[in-house]
Amino acid sequence: MITKPILLIDKKKCKRNIEMMFLKAQRNNVVFRPHFKTHQSLEIGQWFKELGVGKITVSSLEMAQYFSTEWKDITVAFPVNILEIETINQLSEHITLNILVESIEAARFLIQNAKNKIGIYLKIDVGYNRTGLPPTATQQIDEILNEISNCATLHFKGFLTHAGHTYKCRTKEEILSIHNTSRAILNGLKNRYIDRYPDLNISIGDTPGCSVADDFSGIDEIRPGNFVFYDLTQHQIGSCSIDKIAVAMACPIVSIHTDRNEIVIYGGGVHFSKERLESDNQGTIYGIVVKQLAEGWGEPISGMYLKSLSQEHGVISVPESLIREYKIGDLLYILPVHSCMTANEMKGYYSNAEMITRL
Amino acid sequence: MITKPILLIDKKKCKRNIEMMFLKAQRNNVVFRPHFKTHQSLEIGQWFKELGVGKITVSSLEMAQYFSTEWKDITVAFPVNILEIETINQLSEHITLNILVESIEAARFLIQNAKNKIGIYLKIDVGYNRTGLPPTATQQIDEILNEISNCATLHFKGFLTHAGHTYKCRTKEEILSIHNTSRAILNGLKNRYIDRYPDLNISIGDTPGCSVADDFSGIDEIRPGNFVFYDLTQHQIGSCSIDKIAVAMACPIVSIHTDRNEIVIYGGGVHFSKERLESDNQGTIYGIVVKQLAEGWGEPISGMYLKSLSQEHGVISVPESLIREYKIGDLLYILPVHSCMTANEMKGYYSNAEMITRL
Repeated sequence: MITKPILLIDKKKCKRNIEMMFLKAQRNNVVFRPHFKTHQSLEIGQWFKELGVGKITVSSLEMAQYFSTEWKDITVAFPVNILEIETINQLSEHITLNILVESIEAARFLIQNAKNKIGIYLKIDVGYNRTGLPPTATQQIDEILNEISNCATLHFKGFLTHAGHTYKCRTKEEILSIHNTSRAILNGLKNRYIDRYPDLNISIGDTPGCSVADDFSGIDEIRPGNFVFYDLTQHQIGSCSIDKIAVAMACPIVSIHTDRNEIVIYGGGVHFSKERLESDNQGTIYGIVVKQLAEGWGEPISGMYLKSLSQEHGVISVPESLIREYKIGDLLYILPVHSCMTANEMKGYYSNAEMITRL
Repeated sequence: MITKPILLIDKKKCKRNIEMMFLKAQRNNVVFRPHFKTHQSLEIGQWFKELGVGKITVSSLEMAQYFSTEWKDITVAFPVNILEIETINQLSEHITLNILVESIEAARFLIQNAKNKIGIYLKIDVGYNRTGLPPTATQQIDEILNEISNCATLHFKGFLTHAGHTYKCRTKEEILSIHNTSRAILNGLKNRYIDRYPDLNISIGDTPGCSVADDFSGIDEIRPGNFVFYDLTQHQIGSCSIDKIAVAMACPIVSIHTDRNEIVIYGGGVHFSKERLESDNQGTIYGIVVKQLAEGWGEPISGMYLKSLSQEHGVISVPESLIREYKIGDLLYILPVHSCMTANEMKGYYSNAEMITRL
């Protein structure tokens, strides 16, 4: 019995999301290296393994350690944190570890301190402007590659990007425009360096691009993560239909205010995270309430959404016509704004009275 | 050695914050029942115990369970979640447990299901409009009190409020205005019910009010929590000076972008939480960088702040004149926007090479 905030998972939806992305990768002849930062769960990882997936992406060395018991080829898609060199050396002793470099300083540090063979991707900034080398910085790229090429432990694997600016898109056309620009930029680099590095890979990663695009020519690898659950943000962007969202919070009602058409739930920022969305009709929202079905959940209940969050409280805006249908102790099911962040708060997934654990 | 994002605590500042609030309560002859949702740590709890504090507040039954090994008088300042009746019955077997009721439905459920003596506070809404009965709802209050008075297990303790609307204040005058209104409202209820319930308590809770106010007449108990660490939000409200903030994140630099005066740190939404602040000069900020001292940290570095957060990345805006002073692998110390939420993400506090654990 559910007595406090819990993250429900719809296994069927989740497995279908995984299968769809797996098949798309297969169709396009690209390596599928899913990002596991979203679910952070060995058990959900098994659902990928069942399809034959053998390589994964994570966003921290801590996650790499957790998954290394079962996964032997891991890319840490985060600019290498040189302070964690010991963990890097420990991991690279027994798995194929790929890390991201974007400066000559990091490259030199690794040349001096890496004890085992490590795969190196150069992170390229295709316009997100968060991390990475500009694609035009060929002088810096050459400098890093020259230093690496003299090093026995560091093995240049290719160019990697995360086109995170697709998260600002609101139509498929906008997403495709970024996807195609990224592809063109990375193919430019590929053409420039392929003679010198015939095995170099081009790796792209964002869920909106990977969900919407059908042209992956020149791409060798995709690393989407969020698609495993999707969420309201991806729905707003245009990456998924609402019925593909595979996780929902279940939260008890603790207070009902008919005078202002609000319900207070046990479920706050420490459960949902404080990730928010600017919706067209309702202003800032933190989640939307869906109908409960015998198994799982159905479509959104019109006009019923999470309007604010404190540490443990959530306030739900409820249509006047519906508020008297609820009582304290009832559960509400709520789709999250950002499933990666909510899953990170929640420490596990609930399905058919069982908990699926995570890191 | 610090190798990844960690939450530093300045013990001296923290203990001084505790002592100042303790002395204020003593001076005003009110019971000091600090809210432990901010630190969630038995070890930090000891610093209160050393002063003679014996009663605490928490915001979930889970926290009450954690603290019940050492604290025997706990108020759960959250509208009672009737689905957790088993935990309520377990806890009330061996500690004095106080819970919040704000509806006749919750009262009736408890009358039927509570197995041991439980203290009941009626939650009053003094204008925050999140939870609680309106102070004018004396008919509902009477109805609840009448039902409770016939029940052997439920013991009415008094009226409790959280004037959370002080968080929207920006001057001491605004805070005091809310504080005094709350006080007047609650004293009105006290006067109305004191003959019938001579032992009834008035309990107030917000850190801004408790930090700034000097008049607590008619108040029996204060429950501030955030003051133990304070943070940038409290500083913006006017509850504290910046040098009272007792926690700071330490985050490694992983990438430096001199072209756009930005530094990327290992430290994202899963470390800081996504709590944000609208600052006067810099727009939305997620933290500000402070000077590092031999012990702890000093004042903010002008113009250096956390401008955005992803799951694991943080982007720091850096003045052009300073950016070349940093290199990858350096640590930055950053004051959090909301210490309760950051502490909740971070699972412990680092002080002099030792970890202080928490729930």
